[in-house]
Amino acid sequence: MPGSAAATTSGVRHVVSAQQFDRARLEALFAAARQMEGVLAAGGDDRLRGRLLATLFYEPSTRTRLSFESAMLRLGGQVISTENARDFSSAIKGESLEDSIRIVAGYADAIVLRHPEEGAAARAAAVAPVPVLNAGDGPGEHPTQSLLDLYTIEREMGRIDGLRVVMVGDLAHGRTVHSLARLLTVFERVHLTLAAPAAVRMRADVRALLRARGAEVTETDDLRTAVAGADVVYQTRLQRERFAESTGEEGEAAVGLAERFRITPELMARLGPRAIVLHPLPRVGEIDPAVDADPRAAYFRQARNGVAVRMALLAELLL
Amino acid sequence: MPGSAAATTSGVRHVVSAQQFDRARLEALFAAARQMEGVLAAGGDDRLRGRLLATLFYEPSTRTRLSFESAMLRLGGQVISTENARDFSSAIKGESLEDSIRIVAGYADAIVLRHPEEGAAARAAAVAPVPVLNAGDGPGEHPTQSLLDLYTIEREMGRIDGLRVVMVGDLAHGRTVHSLARLLTVFERVHLTLAAPAAVRMRADVRALLRARGAEVTETDDLRTAVAGADVVYQTRLQRERFAESTGEEGEAAVGLAERFRITPELMARLGPRAIVLHPLPRVGEIDPAVDADPRAAYFRQARNGVAVRMALLAELLL
Amino acid sequence: MPGSAAATTSGVRHVVSAQQFDRARLEALFAAARQMEGVLAAGGDDRLRGRLLATLFYEPSTRTRLSFESAMLRLGGQVISTENARDFSSAIKGESLEDSIRIVAGYADAIVLRHPEEGAAARAAAVAPVPVLNAGDGPGEHPTQSLLDLYTIEREMGRIDGLRVVMVGDLAHGRTVHSLARLLTVFERVHLTLAAPAAVRMRADVRALLRARGAEVTETDDLRTAVAGADVVYQTRLQRERFAESTGEEGEAAVGLAERFRITPELMARLGPRAIVLHPLPRVGEIDPAVDADPRAAYFRQARNGVAVRMALLAELLL
Repeated sequence: MPGSAAATTSGVRHVVSAQQFDRARLEALFAAARQMEGVLAAGGDDRLRGRLLATLFYEPSTRTRLSFESAMLRLGGQVISTENARDFSSAIKGESLEDSIRIVAGYADAIVLRHPEEGAAARAAAVAPVPVLNAGDGPGEHPTQSLLDLYTIEREMGRIDGLRVVMVGDLAHGRTVHSLARLLTVFERVHLTLAAPAAVRMRADVRALLRARGAEVTETDDLRTAVAGADVVYQTRLQRERFAESTGEEGEAAVGLAERFRITPELMARLGPRAIVLHPLPRVGEIDPAVDADPRAAYFRQARNGVAVRMALLAELLL
Repeated sequence: MPGSAAATTSGVRHVVSAQQFDRARLEALFAAARQMEGVLAAGGDDRLRGRLLATLFYEPSTRTRLSFESAMLRLGGQVISTENARDFSSAIKGESLEDSIRIVAGYADAIVLRHPEEGAAARAAAVAPVPVLNAGDGPGEHPTQSLLDLYTIEREMGRIDGLRVVMVGDLAHGRTVHSLARLLTVFERVHLTLAAPAAVRMRADVRALLRARGAEVTETDDLRTAVAGADVVYQTRLQRERFAESTGEEGEAAVGLAERFRITPELMARLGPRAIVLHPLPRVGEIDPAVDADPRAAYFRQARNGVAVRMALLAELLL
Repeated sequence: MPGSAAATTSGVRHVVSAQQFDRARLEALFAAARQMEGVLAAGGDDRLRGRLLATLFYEPSTRTRLSFESAMLRLGGQVISTENARDFSSAIKGESLEDSIRIVAGYADAIVLRHPEEGAAARAAAVAPVPVLNAGDGPGEHPTQSLLDLYTIEREMGRIDGLRVVMVGDLAHGRTVHSLARLLTVFERVHLTLAAPAAVRMRADVRALLRARGAEVTETDDLRTAVAGADVVYQTRLQRERFAESTGEEGEAAVGLAERFRITPELMARLGPRAIVLHPLPRVGEIDPAVDADPRAAYFRQARNGVAVRMALLAELLL
């Protein structure tokens, strides 16, 4: 499926933004990821033998890095890696990101880039003679996270059209919910319930986009009611400090507010038997570990799906 | 040898503690490690082809990490690695060790864990769907170090039963000597001489255990006499600050004390021609480098044996 | 070509200094590197299958590390790596470099060493039972950089004899220009123009050596005139602080001075059509990015050539 999942610069394809993917491309990616699950079950294969991936992380994100490296190695490729490119001696000396990318492109067949600045991935893609995969550029995008979130929904529920998705938590600041919400509008009749304290409700530009694209959107601050009838509950990290700050409440009031948006066994009792709970992880308290044993708790399967999705992307870009 | 070297949790085998190993298991491990020396001499093999090991180090221990990684690669496996999981972005955000382990288990077929907290390896093993190998959990255990120590004694001396072993240094605080002393009691008629300043004599619970298991134990603060007739001298790191602090002596007195427990060419002259000197390394001054050229100085062979022992463990857990 | 590129210690060959290489050895290395470019174009090969390289970096130099690792992996070998051996737990505990090298030599078939102290590579080579490759030892040597510089000149120009080479920048402190200047004297009729502010002119001992070896040397502080007729312009990093300090000038004066040694499109107009511009990189401002698109800007090709040169060295030492 040439060209299916990637922006191109001078004929080189990149994964910079989840917004590159239309419905046909997403469905092709899901099919490829599903096939990669089979490859994983069979112990990997050798289709990327002789190919070399560089993981260039300007801020730590061990989970994302290890997931990409696992994906590459499972397909028989190899990896060169830097955990902390902030200390990249050349970066310290004032080298531009563009120069660093040009150099590393001379060492590897593709580059996974994590960078704290929005737009870094696009800048890298603009000069790289090899594919660049954006592994998060600050407040910008983290497309492979959004793609694995969406793949997990499709994988667990069998479809995305017509699903009722509840997004929970700090919807004002969460990069993952903004990106996933936009991607969901590619599908039909998705109903989104945005469950958040008023002070951290979904960002206005995302709400406007959802409405412009015809998504059904409900906003609420009552999670207990919201989960009834939901197919997917997408929980995100609660940052109590931020809640407290945003609401002007402090101490016990903030704790009480966070408690109302927490997923507990009691809340699970209100959720349908075929629904699922997702979370981009890490969690710090917003899902009670007592929920982990519930088969509807899909967040560890979700993390694992990241490997299959990244295998599909790497295979597409490198073959 | 299924089940031979590992505790099990839900059917998954782990290496958490050296105490998991009884005599039969130790002997099977030694045979397997010996075979791995042959594999190394032949340039490695491919028996772990397609298998992926994650090394997850929450504190630096480059030597242990590289030894495990070498073992995995020599058997044709692959490695994903983090040198400094303290900066694991998820750990910073407050993620539990258990969650981190569950995630990384989705990326790899086994996990080598180094963690500063006692009991961390057991906690990891309790939730991991893949084998966990303890590479040191603070004041707790470092089982592969103990196993390579014991393997080296067996490899160099041809047996362990009936040996006269002198342990030297700070026996109050040294994790390696506690673990090795316990493991030696699995064998018969081992005589242990514990050579240490009184202030840092062997920990009472270990002494009690040794006596309960019928080991012959002698304590002394005179290393020069102790080495006469010894088969194995196991030197450990002298921490002069700690000596000084423990004894109330300072400055020259502490230096003099340390000097009395140092291995020098002169001390080697008192040691039998077939005896060996071991040290878990790093050393800082407690073995004179002039001893290195002596064929009885076995500590670099000991370090190298770590690779063969870890190959044997990885092959057992992953095949 | 056994023995061709390496000093030996007890029969083990090492790459410690560029000065190990005479003309015949350099030419053999260039031929091998050229062949490695073909191997790279074909997607690598397997000639180092089963071989293991350790990269041991006591200070960060991600570029050099990744280049070596890429070279090893492109030949089918494997790598164990530490980005920051300063935090090597054993180094913290006071272990000597020699002990660390002996240990790591038990894990790998060759060691790439980066260390802040001059002479560290020679100390390592003196005790290592496996080849040591110097990846920079402080103010000492960085031989693979010099070799890739020279290879690039030969590769781009077709010869080295008789070339007119202009070296630009801080020639007092630059390790790369000292090393390259010495290496160029191995060839015939090379004319060197040393273009630098007087305060940071080429170090006296290097000038003396160049003259002793019969090189034609011109010194100037006028880059615009110097480039006319040049075959190779070797630009190096401008450290304005150092210029300012050295010259006693500050602020605008220092900026003006730096500007006079900068490579700009206007300066390129004075350069011949077949000449090339090199730079060891990273650059911070001493080459205008507007020059990058000029086919005579060879610095990114130069960086890429490092992989082929290191492949040639690794193959020579490990086969």
